[in-house]
Amino acid sequence: MKKFTAFLFLSLSWGTSRAQDSLVIRKLSDEIMLRGKSYENLRVLCKTIGHRLSGSPQADRAVEWGVTALEAAGADRVWKQPVMVPHWVRGKENLQLKLGSEVIEVPVLSIGNTEGTQGKPLEAEVVLVNTIDDFNQLPKDKVKNKIVFFNYHFRHDIINTFEGYGDCGRYRWSAPNAAAAAGAAGVIIRSVSTGEDDFPHTGAMRYADSVKKIPAVAIGNKSADLLATRYQAGQTRAVITTDCTMEKDMPSYNVIGEIRGSQYPDEIILVGGHLDSWDVGEGAHDDGAGCVQSIEVLQAFKATGIRPKRTIRAVLFMNEENGLRGGMAYADSAKVRKENHILAIETDAGGFSPRGFGLNMSEARKKQLQRYRNLFLPYGVYDFEGGEGGADISPLSKEGVPTSGLRPDSQRYFDYHHTNADVFEAVNHRELKLGAVALAAMVYLVSEYGLK
Amino acid sequence: MKKFTAFLFLSLSWGTSRAQDSLVIRKLSDEIMLRGKSYENLRVLCKTIGHRLSGSPQADRAVEWGVTALEAAGADRVWKQPVMVPHWVRGKENLQLKLGSEVIEVPVLSIGNTEGTQGKPLEAEVVLVNTIDDFNQLPKDKVKNKIVFFNYHFRHDIINTFEGYGDCGRYRWSAPNAAAAAGAAGVIIRSVSTGEDDFPHTGAMRYADSVKKIPAVAIGNKSADLLATRYQAGQTRAVITTDCTMEKDMPSYNVIGEIRGSQYPDEIILVGGHLDSWDVGEGAHDDGAGCVQSIEVLQAFKATGIRPKRTIRAVLFMNEENGLRGGMAYADSAKVRKENHILAIETDAGGFSPRGFGLNMSEARKKQLQRYRNLFLPYGVYDFEGGEGGADISPLSKEGVPTSGLRPDSQRYFDYHHTNADVFEAVNHRELKLGAVALAAMVYLVSEYGLK
Repeated sequence: MKKFTAFLFLSLSWGTSRAQDSLVIRKLSDEIMLRGKSYENLRVLCKTIGHRLSGSPQADRAVEWGVTALEAAGADRVWKQPVMVPHWVRGKENLQLKLGSEVIEVPVLSIGNTEGTQGKPLEAEVVLVNTIDDFNQLPKDKVKNKIVFFNYHFRHDIINTFEGYGDCGRYRWSAPNAAAAAGAAGVIIRSVSTGEDDFPHTGAMRYADSVKKIPAVAIGNKSADLLATRYQAGQTRAVITTDCTMEKDMPSYNVIGEIRGSQYPDEIILVGGHLDSWDVGEGAHDDGAGCVQSIEVLQAFKATGIRPKRTIRAVLFMNEENGLRGGMAYADSAKVRKENHILAIETDAGGFSPRGFGLNMSEARKKQLQRYRNLFLPYGVYDFEGGEGGADISPLSKEGVPTSGLRPDSQRYFDYHHTNADVFEAVNHRELKLGAVALAAMVYLVSEYGLK
Repeated sequence: MKKFTAFLFLSLSWGTSRAQDSLVIRKLSDEIMLRGKSYENLRVLCKTIGHRLSGSPQADRAVEWGVTALEAAGADRVWKQPVMVPHWVRGKENLQLKLGSEVIEVPVLSIGNTEGTQGKPLEAEVVLVNTIDDFNQLPKDKVKNKIVFFNYHFRHDIINTFEGYGDCGRYRWSAPNAAAAAGAAGVIIRSVSTGEDDFPHTGAMRYADSVKKIPAVAIGNKSADLLATRYQAGQTRAVITTDCTMEKDMPSYNVIGEIRGSQYPDEIILVGGHLDSWDVGEGAHDDGAGCVQSIEVLQAFKATGIRPKRTIRAVLFMNEENGLRGGMAYADSAKVRKENHILAIETDAGGFSPRGFGLNMSEARKKQLQRYRNLFLPYGVYDFEGGEGGADISPLSKEGVPTSGLRPDSQRYFDYHHTNADVFEAVNHRELKLGAVALAAMVYLVSEYGLK
């Protein structure tokens, strides 16, 4: 009987607490959906600053915007954390395809971090390969001094596009190094893109220490189709003219705001995105959305008067795109200061309808968070099976901090990612806000119950 | 031991069958995602025909398009089912708001099925009410000969926008009748719209038999904000000038294609959307998407060589928007011909990422379909808890046919619904195709196992 009573008591208190939690989450949701600032914040970031690559004047302005927005959200404390960042400059760029007797200029973007042609035309014969395996089977003399065109398609049969990105992304990361090692003069890739359009997609690569830094550019799917269709071995030529170069490191900042926990202020729950973007479009989905959602979490707690038991910290990381310096500086600082991060959540997968959270932590902690699933279902958030955290918080993860990544619907992300199409208008206001609701709910539950 | 063996055998055969099913569904998915015709079919429908209200020449052309597309998909048989449909004609329309000394012309759409002002200006004082309850509390003399402005906002705190539509839609359906009954001269409504924009949304209403058919128009959210902000009781006036009218019924058709079942040809699984649209935009999400997805189900079975045990029928219904005549004619015919529909599925909630299926059927049948949940999870389809079927198949439901509605993500739908913004470009190709995958998977499972 005693056991039964204890069980009854537990289950009653559990039930009551869950009902109470569901009301608190509803309150946060109503605040965000009806009176939230995330959409307007995103508009200001995108339309008054625009894209903001690390080291650029726009990135400096974005830092000041971040401070102002976190203060307006009502953070107890807002500060800037210094970090030195790479400073890559794109300059002018041009690509001509010589197809038979025709010379066609197509939209092009240099791949991020690459060196250009110093503004001089680099003309060479094009060698088309469909995969890196095909490339590796070519004799080196077929490649030497040529421009290699990697014509690999983003796989549309893979349902989660982040898995497709994992598959296709190596053509941006690795393929230029493979071509350089074989003596190629330059590289063109079919963009890492799900788009049925002609937007080229930029993004980071890193030259291997052993190779010559050859120019590498990306073209959109339509131009890649054109080049692949009209390609004639031994005859097709291309002219790459680019200016891009890596300059000296520049000083910049992570921007941080927090609400101090009422009971366990030393237990920190981090929610963050990255403030920098590629130097095209407006960095709306990548990752303006994550920044304004992270700010919105603080805003919603403050506006509803819900006092978190644990400290909530919104972090706008600098330099996710081409160096991860902000994420590393943050983790270094946390280690030196012996800060206790009980959970770090990243939102860097676009401002689309949320579907779940990746959980990168011990099985016991996963199980705790998975038990909250029913509280998320009314908001369309059902999937707690993935294992991803996020790039900016990966240095924290290496230090043993449990990490989590918001998982929005992935279907449209790689239409916009790292392109001129990633603008404010591509973000839906309700989808953006609903992502903030999911984040606020998770932050609330962990602020209330900890993460054992 | 015997029991154990039987259990083992059952669980093995169940396991094997599920593994086999998952492979078949993957095959259908690969076909649809990689080689499917749905996106190109939608482009042709939207860009060469455009919107297609019942009774319009475009609706006639859409019927012929449907026949051709179903034949190209490889249907065993394609036919047209005659049906008489309403023929509402919009004509020219104009709305001026007189705000203080300013006269401002704003974008406007007459509500569908309404009578206009015969092209003559109808000018009157505006009476603003926020809700029907507020309206009902007004004395009749405050309303008589006035233009009532129903300023009700779509509720953004409701997460599923179809529930928000249920809440807000009565301002289009019922409010004009309430105003007419009180002697009003005309009605303006804030559109049934989630949009942060100024697109007016049309859509159906039906005059009550007892009331005068007064003009009723919709304005976008920005214009409604303007009118609400600048409104001054007793001073604000509006001028409605519209031409719209209901003309005589016209002949039209449902378009039907089927693949005959190999083992149980008399058991029919219906998958359908509606071919007609409102006379604005291109009817892309509503419901070109559902039409091309339904056609794609047949296409995918044919292209993969998967022979269904039961008959699969794709139905492109005519006149869902302003009469439901196609749905009624189809159900009447099915009854007369004693056809055995074991399941009817409608896709009429936009070409967005699928999240689930509404199940409108006996508990036992629901449980059967819910047991297939794990087969859908890899495609992001997890929610089998809703109860909705679809408008076109509601007459079949009344005859006892189990019905189901595809549930896509709902966040963006009411930004586009019944507006000039509902165009091909608003549909994402991967989201559209993924909806077709979900439909094909459900149709396959029921064609294989029936629905007991």
